Amino acid sequence: MPQRHVINASVSPKGSLETLSQREVQQLSEAGTGSIYTLFRQCALAILNTGAHIDNAKTILDAYKDFEVRIHQQDRGVRLELLNAPADAFVDGEMIASTREMLFSALRDIVYTENELDSQRIDLSNSQGITDYVFHLLRNARTLRPGVEPKIVVCWGGHSINTEEYKYTKKVGHELGLRSLDVCTGCGPGVMKGPMKGATISHAKQRITGGRYLGLTEPGIIAAEAPNPIVNELVILPDIEKRLEAFVRVGHGIIIFPGGAGTAEEFLYLLGILMHPDNRDVPFPVILTGPQQAAPYLQQLHAFVGATLGEEAQAHYQIIIDDPAEVARQMTAGLKTVKQFRRERNDAFHFNWLLKIDEGFQRPFDPTHENMAGLQLSHDLPPHELAANLRRAFSGIVAGNVKDKGIRLIEQKGPYEINGDPSIMKPLDELLKAFVAQHRMKLPGGAAYVPCYRVVQ
Amino acid sequence: MPQRHVINASVSPKGSLETLSQREVQQLSEAGTGSIYTLFRQCALAILNTGAHIDNAKTILDAYKDFEVRIHQQDRGVRLELLNAPADAFVDGEMIASTREMLFSALRDIVYTENELDSQRIDLSNSQGITDYVFHLLRNARTLRPGVEPKIVVCWGGHSINTEEYKYTKKVGHELGLRSLDVCTGCGPGVMKGPMKGATISHAKQRITGGRYLGLTEPGIIAAEAPNPIVNELVILPDIEKRLEAFVRVGHGIIIFPGGAGTAEEFLYLLGILMHPDNRDVPFPVILTGPQQAAPYLQQLHAFVGATLGEEAQAHYQIIIDDPAEVARQMTAGLKTVKQFRRERNDAFHFNWLLKIDEGFQRPFDPTHENMAGLQLSHDLPPHELAANLRRAFSGIVAGNVKDKGIRLIEQKGPYEINGDPSIMKPLDELLKAFVAQHRMKLPGGAAYVPCYRVVQ
Amino acid sequence: MPQRHVINASVSPKGSLETLSQREVQQLSEAGTGSIYTLFRQCALAILNTGAHIDNAKTILDAYKDFEVRIHQQDRGVRLELLNAPADAFVDGEMIASTREMLFSALRDIVYTENELDSQRIDLSNSQGITDYVFHLLRNARTLRPGVEPKIVVCWGGHSINTEEYKYTKKVGHELGLRSLDVCTGCGPGVMKGPMKGATISHAKQRITGGRYLGLTEPGIIAAEAPNPIVNELVILPDIEKRLEAFVRVGHGIIIFPGGAGTAEEFLYLLGILMHPDNRDVPFPVILTGPQQAAPYLQQLHAFVGATLGEEAQAHYQIIIDDPAEVARQMTAGLKTVKQFRRERNDAFHFNWLLKIDEGFQRPFDPTHENMAGLQLSHDLPPHELAANLRRAFSGIVAGNVKDKGIRLIEQKGPYEINGDPSIMKPLDELLKAFVAQHRMKLPGGAAYVPCYRVVQ
Amino acid sequence: MPQRHVINASVSPKGSLETLSQREVQQLSEAGTGSIYTLFRQCALAILNTGAHIDNAKTILDAYKDFEVRIHQQDRGVRLELLNAPADAFVDGEMIASTREMLFSALRDIVYTENELDSQRIDLSNSQGITDYVFHLLRNARTLRPGVEPKIVVCWGGHSINTEEYKYTKKVGHELGLRSLDVCTGCGPGVMKGPMKGATISHAKQRITGGRYLGLTEPGIIAAEAPNPIVNELVILPDIEKRLEAFVRVGHGIIIFPGGAGTAEEFLYLLGILMHPDNRDVPFPVILTGPQQAAPYLQQLHAFVGATLGEEAQAHYQIIIDDPAEVARQMTAGLKTVKQFRRERNDAFHFNWLLKIDEGFQRPFDPTHENMAGLQLSHDLPPHELAANLRRAFSGIVAGNVKDKGIRLIEQKGPYEINGDPSIMKPLDELLKAFVAQHRMKLPGGAAYVPCYRVVQ
Repeated sequence: MPQRHVINASVSPKGSLETLSQREVQQLSEAGTGSIYTLFRQCALAILNTGAHIDNAKTILDAYKDFEVRIHQQDRGVRLELLNAPADAFVDGEMIASTREMLFSALRDIVYTENELDSQRIDLSNSQGITDYVFHLLRNARTLRPGVEPKIVVCWGGHSINTEEYKYTKKVGHELGLRSLDVCTGCGPGVMKGPMKGATISHAKQRITGGRYLGLTEPGIIAAEAPNPIVNELVILPDIEKRLEAFVRVGHGIIIFPGGAGTAEEFLYLLGILMHPDNRDVPFPVILTGPQQAAPYLQQLHAFVGATLGEEAQAHYQIIIDDPAEVARQMTAGLKTVKQFRRERNDAFHFNWLLKIDEGFQRPFDPTHENMAGLQLSHDLPPHELAANLRRAFSGIVAGNVKDKGIRLIEQKGPYEINGDPSIMKPLDELLKAFVAQHRMKLPGGAAYVPCYRVVQ
Repeated sequence: MPQRHVINASVSPKGSLETLSQREVQQLSEAGTGSIYTLFRQCALAILNTGAHIDNAKTILDAYKDFEVRIHQQDRGVRLELLNAPADAFVDGEMIASTREMLFSALRDIVYTENELDSQRIDLSNSQGITDYVFHLLRNARTLRPGVEPKIVVCWGGHSINTEEYKYTKKVGHELGLRSLDVCTGCGPGVMKGPMKGATISHAKQRITGGRYLGLTEPGIIAAEAPNPIVNELVILPDIEKRLEAFVRVGHGIIIFPGGAGTAEEFLYLLGILMHPDNRDVPFPVILTGPQQAAPYLQQLHAFVGATLGEEAQAHYQIIIDDPAEVARQMTAGLKTVKQFRRERNDAFHFNWLLKIDEGFQRPFDPTHENMAGLQLSHDLPPHELAANLRRAFSGIVAGNVKDKGIRLIEQKGPYEINGDPSIMKPLDELLKAFVAQHRMKLPGGAAYVPCYRVVQ
Repeated sequence: MPQRHVINASVSPKGSLETLSQREVQQLSEAGTGSIYTLFRQCALAILNTGAHIDNAKTILDAYKDFEVRIHQQDRGVRLELLNAPADAFVDGEMIASTREMLFSALRDIVYTENELDSQRIDLSNSQGITDYVFHLLRNARTLRPGVEPKIVVCWGGHSINTEEYKYTKKVGHELGLRSLDVCTGCGPGVMKGPMKGATISHAKQRITGGRYLGLTEPGIIAAEAPNPIVNELVILPDIEKRLEAFVRVGHGIIIFPGGAGTAEEFLYLLGILMHPDNRDVPFPVILTGPQQAAPYLQQLHAFVGATLGEEAQAHYQIIIDDPAEVARQMTAGLKTVKQFRRERNDAFHFNWLLKIDEGFQRPFDPTHENMAGLQLSHDLPPHELAANLRRAFSGIVAGNVKDKGIRLIEQKGPYEINGDPSIMKPLDELLKAFVAQHRMKLPGGAAYVPCYRVVQ
Repeated sequence: MPQRHVINASVSPKGSLETLSQREVQQLSEAGTGSIYTLFRQCALAILNTGAHIDNAKTILDAYKDFEVRIHQQDRGVRLELLNAPADAFVDGEMIASTREMLFSALRDIVYTENELDSQRIDLSNSQGITDYVFHLLRNARTLRPGVEPKIVVCWGGHSINTEEYKYTKKVGHELGLRSLDVCTGCGPGVMKGPMKGATISHAKQRITGGRYLGLTEPGIIAAEAPNPIVNELVILPDIEKRLEAFVRVGHGIIIFPGGAGTAEEFLYLLGILMHPDNRDVPFPVILTGPQQAAPYLQQLHAFVGATLGEEAQAHYQIIIDDPAEVARQMTAGLKTVKQFRRERNDAFHFNWLLKIDEGFQRPFDPTHENMAGLQLSHDLPPHELAANLRRAFSGIVAGNVKDKGIRLIEQKGPYEINGDPSIMKPLDELLKAFVAQHRMKLPGGAAYVPCYRVVQ
């Protein structure tokens, strides 16, 4: 392990945490010792490592075992005291401004939001209540800006892609930024960073100073995928379902770059929603793109959608190979339609209220062996329900690959079994094998991939 | 009745009401038909009459009997539809910007706040809970600005003073503004307008564009004392006790101009708080001032304080006769001490958390004949408790003079009886008689004053 | 003489005087001892008296005989040292921001501009050169703002009008400001202050923070008519002809309120220009207005124009009696036409290049007895030339009334003789007599008016 | 030659070119056909190629032979019409904002400045006059910002350095930006781009939106070294001497990275000035730095200075190897001293008036064979004069390497002869040979280097 420089510091917030009531400060400082302390500490450590090139949560946690963060009540406000914090987050003893911002975003979202929103008016027992909750989280983070024209482009794709693919995402981001569009990603490395980096340069060229680089993440993911330092708005949603809902309600269009099982999960989530009969008229530009070298991958994904969900599903996106400017042009055109539509329907620009998201997409899927085996993957289902189940299948595979609980389950009981119509199972198996062959199924440790699933055909 | 021009219009908000969740919009529009509709309609009408010279709520309400305001859900936001609204609030068909702002401040504070805050985390059963509630109301109105140095000067005094006194308040406001201070008042006419008007001119001379003219009012008072158009931040607190607490927690110093029973009530409220043993060290600049002609009035008030609460009470304020620049200089000096103190104690600049306010000052006083007769006005009490009771006595007199319920009680049962130590009763009686002689006891209708109380000596 | 408080102070500039070359600073400080020092000292003193109610230059100069202003080279910039300056310009020892601004506007325009522009590229030998000079003076003062829509309304009229007329100008200004219009005047008291004061209040009501109150003055006039403190852009043009040209090129419309000979001079200047054949198509809204009481005055002026310059001249303006809102509405409509026209002709919004101003209007008129007697006032002339000569006649009368040189000439040689066609002389004589009867011919000292002219019929 | 995409377009300016007088517009459009048209066209073409990777002026000019730029008078302003312009400067038909800015910077500096400043008050016959001229050029370009604390760091070095050196310049720029410092370079590629790119990222991390990336160039150099797109302030100085003076008067400290003869010329220019007896007390932080690999180069340069100019010269700079953070820390410390000094001496922060620059450094050196042979390179001279002559020697070598005139002279007459004290000639010869060996003497065409000089020992 390389030598570790640490520093002790005390920082105070900017923004919504500046005016707290006595009770709120008290709640926050109590939280500092409660059960969510571990979670906050872990996120804080990940943020302080922003920009470092270790993308393994465990490594970071091990390297800074004696790191501590304490929440103090001061100035009738809140102040964080950091002990043994990574020195890289500081310049000549002063914390880098963006790091400070993200640290208090984490405090706001993890500690404050948990305290405030969980215990209240929020009713998570029905679909609209969940949507309201996502709305409140985003509003509390000041993400919703009324009146601004639709220009948030969500970029999805893998966090560990190859160099050529990474460069391609930068070029696409550059072209988006040249057209004054903003970028929203999962806020880690790879596809989550490239487009933001490209847009930063082109925003500067276009003399745009208020460019937004919005990162939506989860507590469980932030440590593994520390937010890249370009992110200038960080929101931590409580789980993957809330995070996915935030993406599709706050984003105005989506670009999907190459990735692995996680990207497939996101793609199927999106298709499942867009295919819902209620969303028939809701415009939502979706573009699959990659460099020339990724063409086979994209074609295979496209074929899989065709084989499982049919042509109707394929009509919801376009594929553009190796043409960043064209991607940006098509996205710009799509956003115009979105704007027109929202205006006609009196829908807000800042939150896609009209999009119907079935409760099935909002509820966490628990990837037990039973649940995985019980997934109905059949053409008898309406396509959007089949899409929902396929998405669950990929969600389980991601869990089995990288999440603590999933890994333990696989260790105990062996690989998941997935079964269904052969006409679905075959393309699924091929797609998964291709992911493996293309090294798109990464494990935390970097070891050779042993599948956590078995497709029963 | 003069000819009435009316107009129909539809207006949408700026600010915090721009991003509402579906549920919030629904709550708002339901409120439009519920029990608080009458209250909101009355406030809206008063605001639309801002700048008109009718200061009688009843006259306004009678003049616009067919005025209606409807709350619509649109653009996933809220929109107000006004029918038969006073035409003076519009220029060539478009609502004046400040009127629109105040209208949505009223919506925010009356409808939204009632909905949100009443049903929640707010615990009004104890002193700290009440303070928290006041804090939340002010924060929701975006009144609390962290980090800004102490410079909010509260001006108290009568709403119907004579011309010389009114001109004097303008001069004092002018001198405050020259020294970059902001003005906070009860937001109606008279003393509530003069200092703001003076400061507007001097802020312009000093090229200060962000000058604050903060008006704190109540639903029951706004119709009678329509906010003057200079007010650029309007907050409607639910009752007089919350409003008084807001004044002393958000203001950094207080200037008291001549007034009647209401002003005496405010003055005694303030003295009662400042004399509390816990507040011994809390600096709070208080200045009594008026033009030469008002000197006897001020001296009499001063003597009354001396006779009833003693020299200790007199030490909490200074009296400056006919010297606006000196008032402003002393206030500036006082604010420096406040700033120093808050810094040392780590108290926020934007909210005076350290000031102890006894629950007795926070609870409404119900001015029945029994309660009035039962007030203990005796030197046996600690001075700050005697101040509290004297404040209640004046509160009752104000109610008996101008408030619906009080007037009805007096009609039924005759004047209130107030009794206590002769050494308190005598100066009290003299003070009240002087108020009457100086025409400082105004009735809504403008008739000759018949006292609503009898001092039993 | 009342007691005089004086103060010594040192002030440094903001704006264009902050970055001077060594040579420029040297030139400035030399100027501090040169021939224009007297002029600058006089203007500085007038500005420091801004807001004081003495409107007599001589009185001010006498009151502050030992006032001195020194120009220092410091920080590679310039700094003014003031000795025995009027204390009213300071608050607790610090100069009021607007006063400081105006002081450096005077330095910029009087000293710097004289140095820079007189010696250079400027060619005052022809009409275009003079226009260019006016342009450069205004640009150097940062008065020209490209791209802003036409909304500068020039208000002309007397500086010592009666209270009813003054209140009326405030109301008109208030209505202009409600419609987001800006105000430009000669920057002294009376009509030069009222509209600005009214607009200040209505700009605040409309939450307009960038309202412009532009004052155009001359060195010879500023001492007598100290800039009112609302003026937030002060430009000192070298003489009355440049000042009048600045008014008509930078203003987008003109409102004429009641006044005396000076106002008549301005009105005839304007008519002379608008009647020039080249300006036939140039839209330029002109409104004569006043309260009911001023109706006879306005009618008489209108009749005089009809009798001397004909109906064509009358077509260039409209008269609105006692209706401030209508004045503002008509002006707003007129400005729309101006905007449309400039756009079609590709003319700048910020400077009326297309307006033809004959060299005769640009050249100073020297009001000797010979020149006055020699003025050709005959219907044989084209109307716009007759207007030019009538304007010269009024210019001479103003000089004979209030200007040093004119007064001395009258003392030496008796009143001016003005002669011409009886059909012009008769209405002229009536108009002048009416001015006298209405006390619109004021003398510096306030004495009873003895005419400085004799109309030969 | 690759396929060339071209576009026709019409663009209008922002900034100081928005308000021109009729005469100024006329002068500009005349210039469009005059002798300086060629120069402007060439600069415009280079700017339109910003970001393209061709760094050879001739190639660009050949590729766009039919490119034309026309200056039109419109809207009483100026408008550029471009024919057959490189399509890369546009996004979907609209010119990139930064390109448009630079295009009008070139128009301002080349056409307007030539017209205005050459013909006027500027007196180039003496040293102070030349300094004033540089000041006026910078002020006209709005480069001088009064009151801003010293933080402009000039970065000098080669435009074609190796990858490791380029990455190092980015790291240094990143560390500078983390400490809120701004970057000024010659605005081309290599060392002129790296530090700006690094600072862009760290300014974003520190949430600094007003970071300055100042590029100072010359008409003769801009085509060869097209401004990199990060430059957000471009100033074109008329020749190398004015440009060097601009660097040392507007910059607050200088970092020297590896480079070739041009960098040596700049370094000797700087040492010559700093060694002038009048500048003994003027603090001016200078740091030589490079990655580990460049250590020998830096040591050799250091040794050359020691051998020729002595230890006193070496005291004017420090050398830091491979430690970007330390470079930034030392520069920050140096800038504090600069600030302190300017404050004490009342010198402006925005222009280093106190620095004495001998006329010899301000006058162009004409590198004829006679002048080169006649250079006195002897220890008999005072060190700062020797430095001046050594600088001239390098200036001649640069001309002989890359400038039209120099190349032609060498072709005609063979290499320059340089002679002087052997103790100077020997280290000079070694340094030049090292430059050749390290490929730091680049020729336009990229051919093997044949020396254009001969050191006579």
